[in-house]
Amino acid sequence: MSDFRAIEDLIRRGRRFLLTSHVNPDGDALGSMLGLGLSLESIGKEVLFYNADGVPPHLDFLPHGGRVSASLEDMEGTFDASLILDCTDVGRVGEAFQRELGSGRFGKTVIIDHHHTKRRSADLHVLFPKAGATGEIIYSLLKHLGVNPSPDAATCLYTAILSDTGSFHYSNTSSRVMRAAADLVDLGAVPWKVSEAIYESEPLRKLRLLALALPTLEVSDGGRVASVVVDDAMLRKACCGKADTEGFVNFPRSIKGVYVAVLFRQEEDSKWKISLRSKGGVNVAEIAEGFGGGGHERAAGCSIDGSLAKVKEAVLSSISEALKWGE
Amino acid sequence: MSDFRAIEDLIRRGRRFLLTSHVNPDGDALGSMLGLGLSLESIGKEVLFYNADGVPPHLDFLPHGGRVSASLEDMEGTFDASLILDCTDVGRVGEAFQRELGSGRFGKTVIIDHHHTKRRSADLHVLFPKAGATGEIIYSLLKHLGVNPSPDAATCLYTAILSDTGSFHYSNTSSRVMRAAADLVDLGAVPWKVSEAIYESEPLRKLRLLALALPTLEVSDGGRVASVVVDDAMLRKACCGKADTEGFVNFPRSIKGVYVAVLFRQEEDSKWKISLRSKGGVNVAEIAEGFGGGGHERAAGCSIDGSLAKVKEAVLSSISEALKWGE
Repeated sequence: MSDFRAIEDLIRRGRRFLLTSHVNPDGDALGSMLGLGLSLESIGKEVLFYNADGVPPHLDFLPHGGRVSASLEDMEGTFDASLILDCTDVGRVGEAFQRELGSGRFGKTVIIDHHHTKRRSADLHVLFPKAGATGEIIYSLLKHLGVNPSPDAATCLYTAILSDTGSFHYSNTSSRVMRAAADLVDLGAVPWKVSEAIYESEPLRKLRLLALALPTLEVSDGGRVASVVVDDAMLRKACCGKADTEGFVNFPRSIKGVYVAVLFRQEEDSKWKISLRSKGGVNVAEIAEGFGGGGHERAAGCSIDGSLAKVKEAVLSSISEALKWGE
Repeated sequence: MSDFRAIEDLIRRGRRFLLTSHVNPDGDALGSMLGLGLSLESIGKEVLFYNADGVPPHLDFLPHGGRVSASLEDMEGTFDASLILDCTDVGRVGEAFQRELGSGRFGKTVIIDHHHTKRRSADLHVLFPKAGATGEIIYSLLKHLGVNPSPDAATCLYTAILSDTGSFHYSNTSSRVMRAAADLVDLGAVPWKVSEAIYESEPLRKLRLLALALPTLEVSDGGRVASVVVDDAMLRKACCGKADTEGFVNFPRSIKGVYVAVLFRQEEDSKWKISLRSKGGVNVAEIAEGFGGGGHERAAGCSIDGSLAKVKEAVLSSISEALKWGE
């Protein structure tokens, strides 16, 4: 991870930067954005932070998160460059950004991401698909620039890494990303504080919803498939929104012997959102694609119209087929 | 972590070693034991593994776990030394070991641990209370000895570290323990495989039990205390044993704003086991001690006789008191 020459030049010459990331931002998007922005400020740059959806409540612990604006209208003047983090495509920054892109006021557009893409929608692409998180790339970039993140910036970058490696659980967890995290701890990130903020700050209503959803747990295919249902009635009873089902698919996934875990979440009267997780052996992206969705080999999703019974049958038999092929 | 001279001498001179750990072993106890033992074998030592309770089902993924004997009777001959891992006191190895200790057949007894103790029950004590896990001490010791753990040994030591730092969540997570983990990944441990084995291999019955327990979730003291109950009827209905409530206290703990989480688990008709967790601010060891139990500042436990209503009232009002003092 050393080809930072093009972006180094741009950062050294520029004076005013817009830092942004994808809509519906996660810990890696916002953590990377704040970690890089605060570090650029420490070397005298002017930095403004923008995300079309702002900072969601579960990430409001991020230092300086209050500086992230959800509106471009408040921002005056032009920028030397816009650094777009954890985002494969300029389009994912949101409509407002897209609309103004032609005006030139955002300066050079630079995508910095660890996702793989062949599309080239920005002026410059800094892509390291082997990095566990965009936060890992940012930390490498800062080392390359000779900039030491402050404790606040280190906390943001540690959050980015922890979020996207699933607390060092996922298959993108390398020794390199762990050493980057260790360096960030030395720079002032406090592991238990970030972990507590991310993993132990659930709204009470979400636990109430989980209590309603868990009794629907079903296993099939000789214990290799497990699924859970969240319907509208449950969401209403627990005063929950759809975002509160985040992570629920990990419960069927946590069962020994389960290859594929599924969450069926009601979207509308007869429309269901399906989240699929695989522990390997079955490519759930292929299953999701069969229903017009998509994703990765181990995490994918789709939406299907129909009654729960019909939707369940369609999805579970598609998984059964895939399991047979894998045998 | 460099004062390994006494144990280095003992390891270099010795030929035959017994490796053991505390009863009711966890990932750090067994992972450290196997990681050290396999590494000693790689430099030509003879090693036998003993744990009074053997390997519990949730740790049967550990490489060479099948070599851990739960009986000392099968083991013939004498040992140059017995290395007792993750164990503050020789007594915690179990009664069978204690009984034979006087015979001298176990050779020099050496305790290697990251818990703090002033008691000296072995011939030699290698204590590093700042280490996140005994596995971290073992890795340092092996580096000191110039022994590279094999991929299997690295997997055992990585498991030890992951278990005792709660997947790098707990306050004992230092940059040093993260770098040790990173080194072990380079030596062949595969993070996602170990994480999956530890965190995604739950028996189905445990999720059934969780579904029964979660509806008992109660919050008090303005959302600062949350508790969950598991009674005998639930255990029977879900075909669960008491060990299946492991980790349940983390659900009330995961709620935002909660300082103290409690699990009330029925032990007998009118006897309850109380698990207490604190996110800081309240020392739950003091609360547990008030009921004849004990533990650490953030994790403690006790047993109380009485009806659930009375036991709950006693524990929750003791926590309320502690919260008032903390204000």
